[in-house]
Amino acid sequence: MPYVNIKVTREGVTSEQKAELIEGVTDLLERVLNKNPATTMVVIDEVETDNWGIGGEQVTHRRKRGE
Amino acid sequence: MPYVNIKVTREGVTSEQKAELIEGVTDLLERVLNKNPATTMVVIDEVETDNWGIGGEQVTHRRKRGE
Amino acid sequence: MPYVNIKVTREGVTSEQKAELIEGVTDLLERVLNKNPATTMVVIDEVETDNWGIGGEQVTHRRKRGE
Amino acid sequence: MPYVNIKVTREGVTSEQKAELIEGVTDLLERVLNKNPATTMVVIDEVETDNWGIGGEQVTHRRKRGE
Amino acid sequence: MPYVNIKVTREGVTSEQKAELIEGVTDLLERVLNKNPATTMVVIDEVETDNWGIGGEQVTHRRKRGE
Amino acid sequence: MPYVNIKVTREGVTSEQKAELIEGVTDLLERVLNKNPATTMVVIDEVETDNWGIGGEQVTHRRKRGE
Repeated sequence: MPYVNIKVTREGVTSEQKAELIEGVTDLLERVLNKNPATTMVVIDEVETDNWGIGGEQVTHRRKRGE
Repeated sequence: MPYVNIKVTREGVTSEQKAELIEGVTDLLERVLNKNPATTMVVIDEVETDNWGIGGEQVTHRRKRGE
Repeated sequence: MPYVNIKVTREGVTSEQKAELIEGVTDLLERVLNKNPATTMVVIDEVETDNWGIGGEQVTHRRKRGE
Repeated sequence: MPYVNIKVTREGVTSEQKAELIEGVTDLLERVLNKNPATTMVVIDEVETDNWGIGGEQVTHRRKRGE
Repeated sequence: MPYVNIKVTREGVTSEQKAELIEGVTDLLERVLNKNPATTMVVIDEVETDNWGIGGEQVTHRRKRGE
Repeated sequence: MPYVNIKVTREGVTSEQKAELIEGVTDLLERVLNKNPATTMVVIDEVETDNWGIGGEQVTHRRKRGE
């Protein structure tokens, strides 16, 4: 019954990678907390780099500096 | 003053259906908790089926199997 | 498969009222979007009035003024 | 280490305004709680006016009335 | 830079289990998306069973039936 | 009408500091986006250091090392 929300920047995450994240998190919750995978929900949010800030600045700016 | 976030898969929800959800949730909170509808906020997120997992797999796959 | 998060101030919401909110929202999603109630998830967060702001001030202050 | 999520309606917020929000919130958390700006995260969500409800109706409708 | 929020029912999750979840999710994001673990944030919310609904009823009720 | 959620570790944030955060964020949204403060909502979540991870470990552990 867990609910997991994963937020990452929108920078070309493939459908296969999303599938791996969903499977990986679901397995983790079964392994650590014995949660039934059938009702584990995972929602992935892809966020534009302009809309994500860290260190007081947009990720867009950090990417331009090669970070 | 309540805040409600509804997440559903992005599968053709119409503007009219969104209006019904907003009205329905706002009414529910007034009826059950006597909350003033004027300051009840509702935000609906539509999530791509590739980005939503249940049972360890993407909803996209479930839809292909007719689920 | 919808996920709904309801945030209200922590001001004596009873277990029965929570049950009504959960049932009401689940019914609404079935009625409006034909969502299977079996996999609709609802999470209610009760937030201290000191931690909730509207109009630039804490709800605690508004309550003291009788609002 | 704080995490801040700002939700606003999608109505032409510019990249510069997003940068101001990110910088402003990060500064605020440093000033008030002495939080290290290097690890403060800010995520801005822009929500369609059809998907945002207040007072039981969509923001889209309020905008049509000039509100 | 990812942000992950894990919601589970408050039913005796130990500090060690929380550490495993945090480490496991951080590793998963490094492995699948090459995300730098240093800035991956994980927040675990433990939710009272009265405040979590699935299938239109509180988890508290399901637990009483042995589910 | 914006909604802002601020998550910080539960480490003695005072009611006055919460009031400053609420006022500061509300002002910021008025200044940058001309949002009406009357309907700006702010919710502050205080998270146990055991439940917050960064760099793959619990904040509790970092605090013990003086970080």
